[in-house]
Amino acid sequence: MKIAVFHGSTREKGNTEYLAYKAVPKDQATHIYLRDYNIQPITDFRHTPEGFPDIHDDQLQLVDQMLAHDILVFATPIYWYGMAGPLKVFIDRWSQVMRDPNYPHFREELGNKKAYFILVGGDQPTIKGLPLIQQLTYICQFYGIKVGGYVIGEARKPGMIVHDNRALEAASTLVSELQ
Amino acid sequence: MKIAVFHGSTREKGNTEYLAYKAVPKDQATHIYLRDYNIQPITDFRHTPEGFPDIHDDQLQLVDQMLAHDILVFATPIYWYGMAGPLKVFIDRWSQVMRDPNYPHFREELGNKKAYFILVGGDQPTIKGLPLIQQLTYICQFYGIKVGGYVIGEARKPGMIVHDNRALEAASTLVSELQ
Amino acid sequence: MKIAVFHGSTREKGNTEYLAYKAVPKDQATHIYLRDYNIQPITDFRHTPEGFPDIHDDQLQLVDQMLAHDILVFATPIYWYGMAGPLKVFIDRWSQVMRDPNYPHFREELGNKKAYFILVGGDQPTIKGLPLIQQLTYICQFYGIKVGGYVIGEARKPGMIVHDNRALEAASTLVSELQ
Amino acid sequence: MKIAVFHGSTREKGNTEYLAYKAVPKDQATHIYLRDYNIQPITDFRHTPEGFPDIHDDQLQLVDQMLAHDILVFATPIYWYGMAGPLKVFIDRWSQVMRDPNYPHFREELGNKKAYFILVGGDQPTIKGLPLIQQLTYICQFYGIKVGGYVIGEARKPGMIVHDNRALEAASTLVSELQ
Repeated sequence: MKIAVFHGSTREKGNTEYLAYKAVPKDQATHIYLRDYNIQPITDFRHTPEGFPDIHDDQLQLVDQMLAHDILVFATPIYWYGMAGPLKVFIDRWSQVMRDPNYPHFREELGNKKAYFILVGGDQPTIKGLPLIQQLTYICQFYGIKVGGYVIGEARKPGMIVHDNRALEAASTLVSELQ
Repeated sequence: MKIAVFHGSTREKGNTEYLAYKAVPKDQATHIYLRDYNIQPITDFRHTPEGFPDIHDDQLQLVDQMLAHDILVFATPIYWYGMAGPLKVFIDRWSQVMRDPNYPHFREELGNKKAYFILVGGDQPTIKGLPLIQQLTYICQFYGIKVGGYVIGEARKPGMIVHDNRALEAASTLVSELQ
Repeated sequence: MKIAVFHGSTREKGNTEYLAYKAVPKDQATHIYLRDYNIQPITDFRHTPEGFPDIHDDQLQLVDQMLAHDILVFATPIYWYGMAGPLKVFIDRWSQVMRDPNYPHFREELGNKKAYFILVGGDQPTIKGLPLIQQLTYICQFYGIKVGGYVIGEARKPGMIVHDNRALEAASTLVSELQ
Repeated sequence: MKIAVFHGSTREKGNTEYLAYKAVPKDQATHIYLRDYNIQPITDFRHTPEGFPDIHDDQLQLVDQMLAHDILVFATPIYWYGMAGPLKVFIDRWSQVMRDPNYPHFREELGNKKAYFILVGGDQPTIKGLPLIQQLTYICQFYGIKVGGYVIGEARKPGMIVHDNRALEAASTLVSELQ
């Protein structure tokens, strides 16, 4: 099983990244840092006759990467009780991929995959991060992606995730495909 | 009471906009279409010694508008079970405003306001939009903003909101400050 | 379409009952007040060889009533952010009906029905009642029951529901089968 | 810190009980099996002039036990995406204790405590159990009880919890007061 980890944080070497490595060590997966790519926000052209215009950014390269793996791990800090911008922009643009004639089986292909979520927040994340878990689950359900599990860590300041033993422990057994 | 409606949609004259006008007619409030403004996505510099860099976009002008009103209505289509990008980017950047010495009372000022939410989605929105309601509520709780209520409409295609009588009816009595 | 309203409250003529009548007037449906029936709480015998013992109470009579209608309205006050006891006990016992050889098609039959929820609570019910809406939705999903909609009213003391105009209005257009 | 575990299951030696012992071994806490006590369901007399009648069951004895401990662990199977009956009945009756002149400081005393939740379900419990986590959290918030954390295990049949290594592992580090 090939694993890809999509890092949503805008900060390098942040708490979420640290927790993600506990779940999926660097050398056991493809790690993709969305902040390093140019992904344009979506404009909703689903309902215009001409459809979505071509956008010349890195989105399709990332989609190809995603489709080439079996297990998808989405790791994101919790920003205002939602996912970080780079991850949301990446996922929003899937709407466009679904209408791209070069990706006729996009939804079906995603439906063969399994997803894990890794979240880190500072304000009671194991409670206030639950709407985000529900949102991510609805996204997966739409595509038929199986949800394998999730870990929510707590950290208010850089580096503090090392003190959340419970989350670190949980991360280390999260991705059952690694065991 | 002065009312401002923040429209999050990337599409003009969409279903959400229609529903929002039912709640707050055009001539009874300041209507702000976030898509018409340049708002840069946040990069998390909360924890760097130098803090956030100045960003020369329209964010602070919008923040000033927001602070000049008593009632804030956030109207957004449900994109992937979350809020639309322009609204999320606007809210994300509030983190930066909280650290801006020109806005020393930002959080307290928001705490005197009241918010309403207007959502429209195509996939069982009255159920699958609930995590978004919870997320928006957590955001308001953080600032002390009182949540006045919300309406969730259903529309899969442009213009279809006119058939969601229940949502239209609910919108027309939503903003109690109008009554 | 035949409509049955299941009232979960332990109090007579309470706020929830009032709101339910706005949605489904007394003379347009079968109104069942669960408090008037003897329904024993479930003991989990799903996994014992002998299975569930026969229980001589009113549960099966109520189940028969339920199956004889097309539209099911569940009206309950929000007690500690969940449904009232009589309704929970009634639903819990469905587990037993599913194993009752006299009801071989119980789940399938429920799957042809449509449900509405009417909730009334005193502590920010339109927000803190959402987990209950989600719970009721999961229950319906299990059986394949379509969720038609819901209304959440606010009332802290007896009779106060008359002041929640928004909920009363919403209730009056809730059950689309009545229109 | 004195720990009390309230077991909500109607079955002896079930999966939830097993998981609870992983979190809080038998000899390190007071374990209370609610099914062994007589707790009458609440009837809502909050708003009648004479108030709640005295009920001669075991509720107040259990309340005394609860108040005599610092850490409260609520362990319940997920029945229809909610808590088990005995636990709900116990909690529902707290409404009555709050009006009992013999317990004038009930709410304040609870506000000094910390709670943990242990849930086990069979149908995607780490997702479909989240409304129950939210409900339990709202209950704790009402009383000012701090939520220390929770574990959700998956088991469809008796004994199957032994295969949910992730939950067992998480349980073993759940109650930080034990460490």
